[in-house]
Amino acid sequence: MRQYVVCGHDAPLEPGFPLDDLAGGAGRLDLLCRCVGAGLFLSHGIREDARVHLVLQDELTVSFDGATVRNARPDERTLAGLVDAALEAAGDAVGHRPVESSPGVTVRKRGLEPTLADVGRDRTVCWLHPGGEPAAAASPPADPVFVLSDHRNFEDAERAVLEDAADRRVSLGPRAIHADHTIAVAHNYLDTGGYDPEAY
Amino acid sequence: MRQYVVCGHDAPLEPGFPLDDLAGGAGRLDLLCRCVGAGLFLSHGIREDARVHLVLQDELTVSFDGATVRNARPDERTLAGLVDAALEAAGDAVGHRPVESSPGVTVRKRGLEPTLADVGRDRTVCWLHPGGEPAAAASPPADPVFVLSDHRNFEDAERAVLEDAADRRVSLGPRAIHADHTIAVAHNYLDTGGYDPEAY
Repeated sequence: MRQYVVCGHDAPLEPGFPLDDLAGGAGRLDLLCRCVGAGLFLSHGIREDARVHLVLQDELTVSFDGATVRNARPDERTLAGLVDAALEAAGDAVGHRPVESSPGVTVRKRGLEPTLADVGRDRTVCWLHPGGEPAAAASPPADPVFVLSDHRNFEDAERAVLEDAADRRVSLGPRAIHADHTIAVAHNYLDTGGYDPEAY
Repeated sequence: MRQYVVCGHDAPLEPGFPLDDLAGGAGRLDLLCRCVGAGLFLSHGIREDARVHLVLQDELTVSFDGATVRNARPDERTLAGLVDAALEAAGDAVGHRPVESSPGVTVRKRGLEPTLADVGRDRTVCWLHPGGEPAAAASPPADPVFVLSDHRNFEDAERAVLEDAADRRVSLGPRAIHADHTIAVAHNYLDTGGYDPEAY
């Protein structure tokens, strides 16, 4: 299983955001939707061993499960529609219990800390960090949970959670790139068994 | 300089396509726009040493130059708007001469073969190919032109062009992934100097 937890700092908590202006009018939900696409999609299929968790304003977490998701296409607008439905369903969520808003998409009233406590249990939580160990020098974990941020840096409270929850700090490269591109690179790191030429 | 040439087989040749339905109503222009984003954008900046060329139906080529592009944001809709403007301007293109439709965006009436003959001159044309040399076993070229296809495979005529024009066949991994994710992985391959831990 490969999992990606993405902190969305400006993303909406309410449904009804403008699908025509995801970048400007919906807190960079365009980027978060591309993260879902990068996490779940192969060229002509779905990564059934992958999940993407969008942590919205440290309050709600919308999770996409590659094994069970339906009605998903990789374009931003379609994925934003699934997020919209999840926000609509969030009103029915009680405590940390999930509500399934569409097949393979669930929403929970919880932020980063409880999400990582659950998702990261008995798995290797990897904080994607510019000062981390170079991926090319480290074997990929068997059951990784990569944690990354949207267009903003992690906030102090999130860094404090990560100090406690992260098993490893990993750098995927020397340039600061978009979160969705980071996910594509992380998948490649895992697909190639840590850049083993025999794995290509 | 890093360049990416992406063949779009179903993409529109005329402006006025629906910005609200890029995946279904505009020949998977959503994917091509994400390729532009993956080619040009860093987290908080532009890759000034990068260009992306969209070859539409082997007839028109729309080129984005990271060094000079303006008004670009990484969301699909904004980039599709720049493609729309380029298609609008294509009527003024004569022969293979470029028309600049917006700063850093040019359109030419030419398909894959003349595009590669120009863009690939004195550069290393890399055919991204599942049977190619594993990237992890090969040093990255100094001045690469990566050629890749959209959601369809290359057509026979395109393969014939590539047989002639490609200097190398390169595999970036064992899984068939989307073209935009492939570009993110290729950038990472170059950013890390071929996965050199010292480069992180």
